[in-house]
Amino acid sequence: MSNVRFPIIVVNFKTYREATGVKAVALARIAEKVSEETNVCIAVAPQYSDLYRVASEVSIPVFAQHIDPIEPGAYTGHILAESVKEAGAIGSLINHSERRMQLADIDVCVKRCRTLGLISLVCTNTPEVSAAAAALNPDIIAYEPPELIGTGIPVSKAKPEAVTDALKLVEMVNPKVIVLCGAGISRGEDVKVALQLGTKGVLLASGVVKAKDPYSILREMADACL
Amino acid sequence: MSNVRFPIIVVNFKTYREATGVKAVALARIAEKVSEETNVCIAVAPQYSDLYRVASEVSIPVFAQHIDPIEPGAYTGHILAESVKEAGAIGSLINHSERRMQLADIDVCVKRCRTLGLISLVCTNTPEVSAAAAALNPDIIAYEPPELIGTGIPVSKAKPEAVTDALKLVEMVNPKVIVLCGAGISRGEDVKVALQLGTKGVLLASGVVKAKDPYSILREMADACL
Amino acid sequence: MSNVRFPIIVVNFKTYREATGVKAVALARIAEKVSEETNVCIAVAPQYSDLYRVASEVSIPVFAQHIDPIEPGAYTGHILAESVKEAGAIGSLINHSERRMQLADIDVCVKRCRTLGLISLVCTNTPEVSAAAAALNPDIIAYEPPELIGTGIPVSKAKPEAVTDALKLVEMVNPKVIVLCGAGISRGEDVKVALQLGTKGVLLASGVVKAKDPYSILREMADACL
Amino acid sequence: MSNVRFPIIVVNFKTYREATGVKAVALARIAEKVSEETNVCIAVAPQYSDLYRVASEVSIPVFAQHIDPIEPGAYTGHILAESVKEAGAIGSLINHSERRMQLADIDVCVKRCRTLGLISLVCTNTPEVSAAAAALNPDIIAYEPPELIGTGIPVSKAKPEAVTDALKLVEMVNPKVIVLCGAGISRGEDVKVALQLGTKGVLLASGVVKAKDPYSILREMADACL
Repeated sequence: MSNVRFPIIVVNFKTYREATGVKAVALARIAEKVSEETNVCIAVAPQYSDLYRVASEVSIPVFAQHIDPIEPGAYTGHILAESVKEAGAIGSLINHSERRMQLADIDVCVKRCRTLGLISLVCTNTPEVSAAAAALNPDIIAYEPPELIGTGIPVSKAKPEAVTDALKLVEMVNPKVIVLCGAGISRGEDVKVALQLGTKGVLLASGVVKAKDPYSILREMADACL
Repeated sequence: MSNVRFPIIVVNFKTYREATGVKAVALARIAEKVSEETNVCIAVAPQYSDLYRVASEVSIPVFAQHIDPIEPGAYTGHILAESVKEAGAIGSLINHSERRMQLADIDVCVKRCRTLGLISLVCTNTPEVSAAAAALNPDIIAYEPPELIGTGIPVSKAKPEAVTDALKLVEMVNPKVIVLCGAGISRGEDVKVALQLGTKGVLLASGVVKAKDPYSILREMADACL
Repeated sequence: MSNVRFPIIVVNFKTYREATGVKAVALARIAEKVSEETNVCIAVAPQYSDLYRVASEVSIPVFAQHIDPIEPGAYTGHILAESVKEAGAIGSLINHSERRMQLADIDVCVKRCRTLGLISLVCTNTPEVSAAAAALNPDIIAYEPPELIGTGIPVSKAKPEAVTDALKLVEMVNPKVIVLCGAGISRGEDVKVALQLGTKGVLLASGVVKAKDPYSILREMADACL
Repeated sequence: MSNVRFPIIVVNFKTYREATGVKAVALARIAEKVSEETNVCIAVAPQYSDLYRVASEVSIPVFAQHIDPIEPGAYTGHILAESVKEAGAIGSLINHSERRMQLADIDVCVKRCRTLGLISLVCTNTPEVSAAAAALNPDIIAYEPPELIGTGIPVSKAKPEAVTDALKLVEMVNPKVIVLCGAGISRGEDVKVALQLGTKGVLLASGVVKAKDPYSILREMADACL
């Protein structure tokens, strides 16, 4: 899995203004700085249009936010896995709760990632959906209860038993899959609890992207991984 | 599971002209006749608008072709599980390849069926997707390679190893789930082979709906179950 | 246009529990009663599964809530115009804000309605979208600002200038199209103002469906048309 | 409209392998060369991930292939207009037949383009849909009968009356909108006829992207504009 290591902190830039264009590059540089200072793996997931610029300027892992279940061809406006790979992405989020996919398409995308040597990170919203996703053999699953996304109420503290359930079900279906959790993660403490529950890291967005001082909060989170 | 028994033949009426309105009722009566003659369980899945009429006039199990992942409320144009149940359906197809659903929505629909006492029949297109669906605890899975649907080339003969794979993966993830297969089923022989492979029945459509003599072909298929 | 007359009150049953199954029939009977008492045209739009039952038991116009842009064929889980027609619908809502459609599909659905002799009632959310819909030659347009739907704040009073804009733009593009308005309509007064603004009636849902006494409120609305 | 002039040739790169990554840059350079040699305006529409690279290296107009109807915010995996603009796009295709949009969303996207100073180029599939699109006040409409896309059978020759119809209907609804045509355009002659019919240029893809010698064919097309 290229330079991806665990525990990992994955920062999803979404389509936030604070993480678009030159600001995406700046935020990625902050993530790289924290990663270098702490030796904790931090990955970023900028918008497609920013992938090339970000991947050219930082050495940390860069994910796409989504890929479409297509091969090269006549698919105007779609996201081709080959395209994000050539722009420098080493993997892709798949089925984020803000970009949910059909079950059959998740299967295709996971397989496309495998074929191209990209890391597949499938987002899930319930323990059962996490188990279902595990059956598709992705590299990583990020369990995120959508009702907590963007709230600042951390899943690791608000729903620890759901995280544990997701871990258990995934383990039963496919023990090779690495499990992260996300939603509401906004402090180092939230990351620490996530790891204590047995996850290998976190997926987050607003907690860092919209923070007044992204460096400090990311540093706090990375320190919590040590 | 109400009056559903296995092996089962599920006839999907799709939106075929030959199975719309009064013709839906007529076709359902044929299915009922064959079921009574052979004592083999035959279910039908007519269009929503025909559910009430069909369910009022035959005693065989009636499925909806799809439900939406909603609760009662402001969802104009959607398919409410309560509505198809009150019209007489005892279950619903979910995620048919012509009406694929998001993974998270399949989870919701399976749970909605369970809550309402409806039978959930999730359609799948690959062995891996079948395993994923099994993790969601539906009652029945129908594995149908889409490339064979409507071709008359039966999955049970063209892809026996894929059917076996699907059976094996589902068994590993969730042994309680009943597995059917479908796609290209058009003769009694196809049904027989499907059962020999270990499935508990078939899901089919054009093989019966568009047959010159639906009674004969359905009778041949039912006989193959004995 | 069959027994449709203007001004008209169209009651959308959505997927409300209060308007599902036997309750759909009961509510349609109330609408029929008010229509007979006042001689004002009142139409109802129940769920697909209830179309047959409702249309069999009342003589007022019955609309489907949506149709899909398909011909008869292999479209499991879709809504075939022929099917809702045979169940007794005399027309269909198209592009309701809770079931928005692609532009190209609205074109197909309007044409399918015309071919089958069904009344096409296209819902729109802005004056510009109303003008665009008018260019597709539907029979009726219902302009509904989505932010007011279900609020009880009537479009006719909260956004009279938007209603007037929609009327003006539609008139310029296609003067044959009849314009209704909707969203937040919950009292007779709201209907009266809608007609004074130049519309030919209203499309509403919760204002009647979720009212404690649907008869009284519908009667008040019908009286406001006189 | 920035450096966009008419007649125009817009080359849609789709997700063709021949127009991904470094090959996208190379193809854009060919388009720029032909544009400089002939002084005919040629624009390119590469994939999102290639926008920055392409726009940084050529001086011809660069379009995105699609934008989503969103403002900056929590929309993982979506295409933000601000993002493609900052990557160097001067406009966007909207509603391409391979990425069709809901009517209400086209309205939003056209308005977003106007707000941001991006050129909106709405694709349409029938004369009626062209008229509908015109009512939304986009800058440009490209009428493309989908059944001819990718066939090499040029719309300008196979369906001249449909092009004329589209031009007439758009003129009636909104005479300020510029009309292009597309589908099957693969020779200079096809472009010439398109202009003779009254369009201001063409939208094409495979005719150039998958040509053995993109330079020659593009040069032939540009010469046909003189």
